[in-house]
This record gives sequence, C-alpha cells and structure tokens, in this order.
Amino acid sequence: MNVAIVGAGPAGLGVARVLRDIGVPDVWVLERGQVGQSFFDWPAGTRLLTPSFPANTFGLTDLNAISYDSSPGWSLKREHPDGAAYAQYLKQAAMVFGLDVQCGVEVSALEPQEQGLAISTSVGEIHANFVIWACGQFNTPSDGGIEGATLARHYAEIPCWQSISGDEVFVVGGYESGIDAAVGLASVGKRVTVLGRDAHWLMDDKDPSRALSPYTRQRLDATLAEGQVALVEGADVVAMEREAQGIRLFGSDGRSWLSPDAPVLATGFASGTKQVSSWFEYDDTGLPMLTPQDESTTLPGLFLVGPEVAHGDQLFCFIYKFRQRFAVVANAIAGRLGVDTSALEVYRACNMYLDDLTCCEDDKCFC
Amino acid sequence: MNVAIVGAGPAGLGVARVLRDIGVPDVWVLERGQVGQSFFDWPAGTRLLTPSFPANTFGLTDLNAISYDSSPGWSLKREHPDGAAYAQYLKQAAMVFGLDVQCGVEVSALEPQEQGLAISTSVGEIHANFVIWACGQFNTPSDGGIEGATLARHYAEIPCWQSISGDEVFVVGGYESGIDAAVGLASVGKRVTVLGRDAHWLMDDKDPSRALSPYTRQRLDATLAEGQVALVEGADVVAMEREAQGIRLFGSDGRSWLSPDAPVLATGFASGTKQVSSWFEYDDTGLPMLTPQDESTTLPGLFLVGPEVAHGDQLFCFIYKFRQRFAVVANAIAGRLGVDTSALEVYRACNMYLDDLTCCEDDKCFC
Repeated sequence: MNVAIVGAGPAGLGVARVLRDIGVPDVWVLERGQVGQSFFDWPAGTRLLTPSFPANTFGLTDLNAISYDSSPGWSLKREHPDGAAYAQYLKQAAMVFGLDVQCGVEVSALEPQEQGLAISTSVGEIHANFVIWACGQFNTPSDGGIEGATLARHYAEIPCWQSISGDEVFVVGGYESGIDAAVGLASVGKRVTVLGRDAHWLMDDKDPSRALSPYTRQRLDATLAEGQVALVEGADVVAMEREAQGIRLFGSDGRSWLSPDAPVLATGFASGTKQVSSWFEYDDTGLPMLTPQDESTTLPGLFLVGPEVAHGDQLFCFIYKFRQRFAVVANAIAGRLGVDTSALEVYRACNMYLDDLTCCEDDKCFC
Repeated sequence: MNVAIVGAGPAGLGVARVLRDIGVPDVWVLERGQVGQSFFDWPAGTRLLTPSFPANTFGLTDLNAISYDSSPGWSLKREHPDGAAYAQYLKQAAMVFGLDVQCGVEVSALEPQEQGLAISTSVGEIHANFVIWACGQFNTPSDGGIEGATLARHYAEIPCWQSISGDEVFVVGGYESGIDAAVGLASVGKRVTVLGRDAHWLMDDKDPSRALSPYTRQRLDATLAEGQVALVEGADVVAMEREAQGIRLFGSDGRSWLSPDAPVLATGFASGTKQVSSWFEYDDTGLPMLTPQDESTTLPGLFLVGPEVAHGDQLFCFIYKFRQRFAVVANAIAGRLGVDTSALEVYRACNMYLDDLTCCEDDKCFC
C-alpha cells in the first residue's frame, strides 16, 4: 500500500480524509479493534472536554469534528459526547467519507526497507511507502513512576465509577482525568480525596492544554459545593504500600495518606508511540521529536498525527488543535508523490491547515 | 460625535472595538442602563446557548466572544455563562478595550439632518454622522398576537422560575426560550406542559438558528427522562380567557387547554428597532431590510448590528454569527470617512469579517 495509517481514531481518520481529498491513492487505516476503539474503552460517563456545536457553516468548525464538513454536535445532538457516542460519530465519518479501514490489525513494529517501510502486524507483514502513526495515548497508561503502583487502578482501566469499591476513594493526580474521576466518583455517592502534585484546579493559563477546561472546572465547582470532594495540593505521591487498614500513599515531602481501598491513578499516559519508539527521538518531557512536517527525525517516511504532536511551546493535544496538522502531513506526502495539493486550500480556509506556528505564540486573550 | 452606537451589549461593544482598531475617532456607545443591561435582565439561571471555550490562540475564537482577543470561557471559567456573568465579561471588555460608553442614555428617535443624524435621547438631542443600532431584541417581547395575552407573563419578564405560582405551568411556544422555561420550571419542581406550534424539538436542521441547540436539546432530554415535562406539538395558541378554574388557552384547531395559573409566553421577540422603525423597511417575516453593508435601505448613515441582521437565507442571530458583520459596517463607515481599513485584515484572519455570504449557502455538513 501507498500510505498506512495506524489507528482509526480522530487523528487516523482525519488525516485519511485529507489524503483522500487530494487524491493520494491506496491509503489504508489499520486498526487493532474497531473504529473509535479507544473511545469505546473510556470509562462510562467520561465525555469530551471540548464542546461540540454545529457552527461549521459560519466558518467555526465544531471543536471535536475531524473534518470541516462534519459535526458531532449536530449528528449526536450533544455538546459533550461520551466515548461510545463519539465512537459512533467516527464510525459514521469513516463510512460517509468512504475511508478504507482494516479492523483487527495490530501493529507491533516497523522496519525501513530500501523503499518504504515494512510493518509487522498481527496479520502478517505489510509494506507501505509511508506510515502515519495515529494511535493516541489512551491505551498506554502511565503509573507516574510510583513505587507499588500495582496496588492501584489506572483511570484508563476503569469501566465505570460504580466498579470502584468503598465509600471513600483516593485519586492520585489532579489534572483533567483526576478531576474527571473525582466528579464521576462523587456522582455515584463516594467521598473523594484528590492528591495533586500541582494545583491544576487553580491555574489560570489561557491554554486548556495547561489549565483545566471550563467543562471540567464547572463540574468540579458544582461537586465541591456538595462537599464530597477534597483537593490536596502539593501532594506528590511517590510510593504506596499495603497496610492492615488499607493502602498507604507516601508523598515526597513526608506526608502520607491511608486509602481504605485501591486508589485510582490519574497519572496520565505514556507515549502512544511505544511500538515504534526506536524510530523516534524524545525530548526531555518524553514527547517525540518531529520535523516541521511532523515526520520522525530518525526515520523518513514515518509521520505522527494526534495528541502527542508538539512544536516548541505549542501542544496539539486536543482534536481542534491536532487536526490542524493533518494537512501539513498530507502536503509532505503529496509532495514526494508528485500529487497536486491545491485541494488543501479548503483546509486553510476552514482553519484546518496550520503550518505557520508563529500565529499561536501570542495568546492574544485580554479578557 | 462621529459615530453613535445605540446599545452596550455584545453587538454595540463589538462594533465599537472594530472602529477603534481602525482608528475612527469620536465613537460613543449610548446605553439606556448599564453595560450588558439586557443580560442582567435575563431570567436567573438562563444561560448562553452557545458554548464558550478558550481556543482563540488556535484560531477558533470562543463562540460568545465579542472580539478575537477575548474569551468569556476563559475569563468566566464557564462554558455557558448566565446573564449576569456574561454582563460581567462585557463590562470587562468595555474597560480593557477602552471603549467610550455613556450609560443612562435612552434613545427615543432619529431624524436625518443636512449632514448626519439628530438623535433624541433622555439627556437631550445628540448629533452624529453615523448611527449604529445595536439594541438586541430581548427588551421587546412579542405576545405572538395572542388575544388575551395580558393574562400571561412573557419569558423576558420573569426574574426567576421560583416566582411562577402553581405546581402545574403551561408554556406557550416550543423554541429555545420555551424549552428553557420548561427546563427551568421543572428544575424548581413544577410540572410543565409546552404548547408548540411547530415541533422545534424534533427538527434536524444543521443551523442552530432553526433547530434546538445541542445545549438545549440535551437539557430537554434529561428533563423529559424525569417525566415532569410534556410537549404538545401543533398547538397553535391564538387566544386565552379567564375561567373560574384558571386560564383557558385556545388553539387554532379547536383544541383547548386549562392552565390553573398564568401561563408563560415564550412567543419570542419583536424587532429591537421599534424606536426607529420608520427608518427601516421590513420584509414579510418582520426583519429589517438592509443593504449589503447592513445599512438601512431608507436612511443612509443608519446601520444595524446584532441578532436581527439577516441576508437571504442567512440569519445572524447568534453572537458568533453577527460578530462577523462588525467589520463590514466598520469598513463602510471608514470608507466614507477616508479612514485606512488595513487593520481589518486581522478580523478576516480570525473569521470575524464575513462579506462574501456565498460561503454560507452550502451547509457542508455530512455527518
């Protein structure tokens, strides 16, 4: 095949659609499960942080749309779809856009060849001229390096908040997933203590990649008002041990907390590039290093799309951000194939083609 | 003064900011009450229908922002600010942008003069070269032509849902404000019957100016699930009369309903241009007719901004829509004053300068 895209989530399907629009032939999306699998795997009730709203016609593409001509806000009739609903939108998009998706194909490794790349998969070796890695991070939970972390359950492994035992639950980590867990646990009647290294809930950054989204903040405020959630800042949990009365959580400053049952780890996610980590260099923060075309700095022909894309200070870790790089990758591949890229201009007009990053450096927001 | 803008809401302040950016001197905003007065007058708990989210840095201006460099989602930390919170954002914007607002000035009439316009106000006559009408519609409730409508209370006149008497309440009208009233009344424990001429709650239009917004629809669905709200479609209420047991509501098809207490009228709003209606022509639907520069077709120098702006099939009745016309009006005024308009290009880049309406005609949304 010409282009193999690994992962049929918003990143994989979105970039596939752009390649289709400019007429790149023989593009396949390889998916380990079904279309939108990671979203089906979300905890029940967890919803997209960014709101959906059908404003596409007036040039403001739905924040969670993977293309300029679709809107989960319109098709799902919801502002914050849950994982299962959003996966339905992705399935519909794959079908409506006529994308070629091969489900049940797990990719385990890549190897460069004289021309293109050999892809080791659960259904045998596949050859492609280009590979676009679009796996997301949800399925690579990180335990944050906490000693004894196997005593806890990671956020990503929890099917629903009712499945957590006990009336009193400790959550380790206070960013988006930690607060989501706290709100979800409180909604099923549990008392929750959130141990946060940083007090993300107090941060006032204008970038929702760094501060709590308004959606999370307003749900947290409502939950705090009900008195079931306590937030502890500066609680840098480094180890946990089983005791007679429960699990003891040790902070780096000498404090400790006793959790009667298994705590919930909201310690984030490791890189979603683990299967191909030998083909990426990583920066100090663990993010894959990329060329200006979002290509691996060590393996030409391997591109990255999705929430791990970063350039300088800019994190592209929301759909409305990373979708702006689909056209950059498509343009690079089309250029090498000699394919006409004029069809990309509609992406620029729809604010989905961000190749000049200087525009994002000034946050511009005064009030 | 050079330009008088009537109304210090999102439309008036937004267009004032654009005029300031291109350096038009001596621009004043005249406001009957305080900045954001109409929003302070909203029923308690009523919120903006469109979500706010701080995505400005990535080129997606907060749907409720009045400028490309502000975000109520960020400054208020809420996705759906209520009226009082949104008014606070407007006050802050007026201050931060250094706009000249004269509060406590009620405009009652306009009269063309040899040059410019004479404005009759509660503080005397004012002269301006141009007038921009930016009053919104909230303060001109319409009773929908229902005979005996004085027996009811209009949505716009209700300070809070608790103030409505009785356990069982009839709402006349099933579009955004009718459903908002139903949800609000149910939230304070009342049983509600919504009488809708059209079943807006079933419509699937891709334009939220025509179908329920996702925000309203999801709140309605949650409320319906609780069983406190009944929706009656095809209920075209034409008259009401007092009876011994309450108020009888008569439908055009011969049906009638007995409301134990005063019903709530959610019959929409009349034109916000009533004080200057002699200077506008109106189309069949009651909307003011405008030139391609949003100027009155009968009184040169009088412009309209805000939710009543319409061209052909395009209704600009949400902030994210009507703000796209601020630059059109500013460009027209600047042209006549010989002011350089190059500063308007930032508005085009930020999707806030929509002068070619052909782009909106195809709704483009496939899924």
